[in-house]
Amino acid sequence: MQTIKVGLLGFGTIGTGVVKVFQQNGDLLASRLGANLELVRIADLDTTTDRGVQLAPGLLTDDAQALLNDPEIKVVIELIGGYEPARTFVLQAIRNGKHIVTANKALLAMHGEEIFRAAEEAGVTVMFEAAVGGGIPIISAIKENLGANNFSALYGILNGTCNYILTQMDEEGAAFADVLADAQKQGYAEADPTFDIEGVDTAHKLALLIGLCFGTRVNFDQIYTEGISKVTALDIEFAHGFGYKLKLLAIGKKDGEKIEARVHPTMIPEDYPLSSINGVFNSVRMVGDFSGPVMLSGYGAGMDATASAIMGDVLAVARDLQSNIGIRSPALGCPQVQMTSCEIKPMDQVVSAYYLRFMVKDQPGVLAQIAGILGNHEISIESMVQPHRHAAEAVPIVFMTHEAEERDVTAALAEIDQLDAIQEDTLLIRIEENLE
Amino acid sequence: MQTIKVGLLGFGTIGTGVVKVFQQNGDLLASRLGANLELVRIADLDTTTDRGVQLAPGLLTDDAQALLNDPEIKVVIELIGGYEPARTFVLQAIRNGKHIVTANKALLAMHGEEIFRAAEEAGVTVMFEAAVGGGIPIISAIKENLGANNFSALYGILNGTCNYILTQMDEEGAAFADVLADAQKQGYAEADPTFDIEGVDTAHKLALLIGLCFGTRVNFDQIYTEGISKVTALDIEFAHGFGYKLKLLAIGKKDGEKIEARVHPTMIPEDYPLSSINGVFNSVRMVGDFSGPVMLSGYGAGMDATASAIMGDVLAVARDLQSNIGIRSPALGCPQVQMTSCEIKPMDQVVSAYYLRFMVKDQPGVLAQIAGILGNHEISIESMVQPHRHAAEAVPIVFMTHEAEERDVTAALAEIDQLDAIQEDTLLIRIEENLE
Repeated sequence: MQTIKVGLLGFGTIGTGVVKVFQQNGDLLASRLGANLELVRIADLDTTTDRGVQLAPGLLTDDAQALLNDPEIKVVIELIGGYEPARTFVLQAIRNGKHIVTANKALLAMHGEEIFRAAEEAGVTVMFEAAVGGGIPIISAIKENLGANNFSALYGILNGTCNYILTQMDEEGAAFADVLADAQKQGYAEADPTFDIEGVDTAHKLALLIGLCFGTRVNFDQIYTEGISKVTALDIEFAHGFGYKLKLLAIGKKDGEKIEARVHPTMIPEDYPLSSINGVFNSVRMVGDFSGPVMLSGYGAGMDATASAIMGDVLAVARDLQSNIGIRSPALGCPQVQMTSCEIKPMDQVVSAYYLRFMVKDQPGVLAQIAGILGNHEISIESMVQPHRHAAEAVPIVFMTHEAEERDVTAALAEIDQLDAIQEDTLLIRIEENLE
Repeated sequence: MQTIKVGLLGFGTIGTGVVKVFQQNGDLLASRLGANLELVRIADLDTTTDRGVQLAPGLLTDDAQALLNDPEIKVVIELIGGYEPARTFVLQAIRNGKHIVTANKALLAMHGEEIFRAAEEAGVTVMFEAAVGGGIPIISAIKENLGANNFSALYGILNGTCNYILTQMDEEGAAFADVLADAQKQGYAEADPTFDIEGVDTAHKLALLIGLCFGTRVNFDQIYTEGISKVTALDIEFAHGFGYKLKLLAIGKKDGEKIEARVHPTMIPEDYPLSSINGVFNSVRMVGDFSGPVMLSGYGAGMDATASAIMGDVLAVARDLQSNIGIRSPALGCPQVQMTSCEIKPMDQVVSAYYLRFMVKDQPGVLAQIAGILGNHEISIESMVQPHRHAAEAVPIVFMTHEAEERDVTAALAEIDQLDAIQEDTLLIRIEENLE
């Protein structure tokens, strides 16, 4: 039986999961493949911490070069994370003719074009199923199984930390800061959670999905990105009252020649399937012209689920190696030279319905003033609620609008927030009424 | 640019969908593939009906042999359906060195071993993504992306007709027969709906999924199969009262060395994601040891969605042809010689909770009699409801039991159904409390 040798860069949580798969399911992998997969080297600067898995002597090294320059190693799993030294190591491995399997969405969202082009030149594959949606087979579904479709839209719940926090706020009525602190204690949020809660991680993933679905190059910094830190339990409660759930949604939409690419807290109808994706689960819903909507969900993060996706990619690369194929299919489904550069629709032209929460002094005439300004900007109101619960201080007034252009809403809010009665910046949350 | 020539056997609804994909998305396929896919021949006995698509002269023939013996054709899409002549034609195509893409679950569930072995001998691929779950990429997810996992369980809503009928009964409170008649009018149910409503189609699909998930051969006639024709709107209403939804569920479970393989109406908790799969949508939930639960959903049938899955397979086979690969991965994920033959757990040993609806004469002591017999058989009751709505005739009494072995329940019901007060056969519906 042929043996295919694999190297692992980065021996953190996910790396440990990968070692567990090799150890526990090695026979299964061999039977699926008709070849042995052997993990021959692990490189990490930390060679002393006990990760709870037994390693053969000499397997772990602090010298990445020993791995990158080993001609026996055909597949490199990159789990260092971040931009550097991951980028340098990956490019070096590619130049050395090694196939790459990575979970590093930040790296690919920032340096994807450089890496994918280098791989095409070297005739090696870059697989990254684990970079989006943890254990859920999203990348391959879009590229391969649904590859005969033109996609019109994709919607994703792509960050487990945010979804966990929003679910807890929903179920417990707890404040954002408290839930975040609790999530950090339980290991569902990082010590510095900025990337997650401000939507940056979700935008990284959306950039990759847009490339795959629409064959177009999007830098993740072109994506409108708004996190969940301003959302309160009160807004989630109001959302319920109107029949909505609140999710941090990644949205990619074809709109003629332009593309909508945005990440923000979004209210979606409660009975929509995406509304039932709770806790650390992730989900993606794509709409193809032939497939119709297809929805995939599962664990979006975690040692085991991410390791599952990585090893699925290793299996695919190993099949290619068995057949002496360099690149079976390009990283984003079509070759880099064929990728287009679609225009991203500016956020102020996006059309949406809106939830607007004003915090006002409880005095006569305020409601009429707000409604008047909204009307002047041609924003039509679907419903309004003013619960009068804390009459002493600022009280919330919530307007749900019909669809309006974002620039009109921004202009109206700029005016409204100047009113004497307005006590704090107005909170705007977009509503997606029709996810197809 | 290389051209890969494809033949289509069977020009019905799905075949027409396939032609539409070739015509509408041919450029997309070419860009993904870096090669042209050309549909060079369609064979169908009916060469006169207008299917609403334009064909080049000479493309359509009534002579399957002209297609099967054309050495230029490298990929054959089989959409004849049923056992014969599909089986004969597929085997002939395989012997002629052609790769097969099929949506024919009946054929594969019955003759899969013969066909897969023939393909392995001939060094060609048999792809069948469209055979299970229409446009949802289930097969490839199990075989490839989740291929590093040992699966413990799979649950599927796999028949759009049944799910449509149950959803309508649920939403409208309508009777089974009325909804079925309506579904037939709307084209959601066949003129002879037996295969669908009696669970046979679901069992065909489950047999394939069990082979893929557990690497074991299951003949579909070993699968316990019970359809939805005995379910009434009353049962669905009772289910709601207890917090359940009623679905025709395909269940495959690893239980030590044995496998549970069963298809039957099943009550599942209302807040489980599978409960939100309504109408003609299908869904599969698989539980891998590393991935955890992964759920995929989308259209389970229909011209366009099925054509999407078929063309995804054609894309994969075309990639193999570009690289001169015969078999990239075996049809069921591991070679036929490595497939095991697990023992199917006999139904009377299956453990489940139960919904039991007794129809009784409204007279004192009946409830105690029933409860007594259940107790004698060590079946413990979780709750009971006796709404007394039609006191003149037979009235329903519903018991929800704790988990019990099926043989005990069967024995108890045999005794209970002998009681004078019992007016009709008792309806038993299994409850899945824990879908993992």
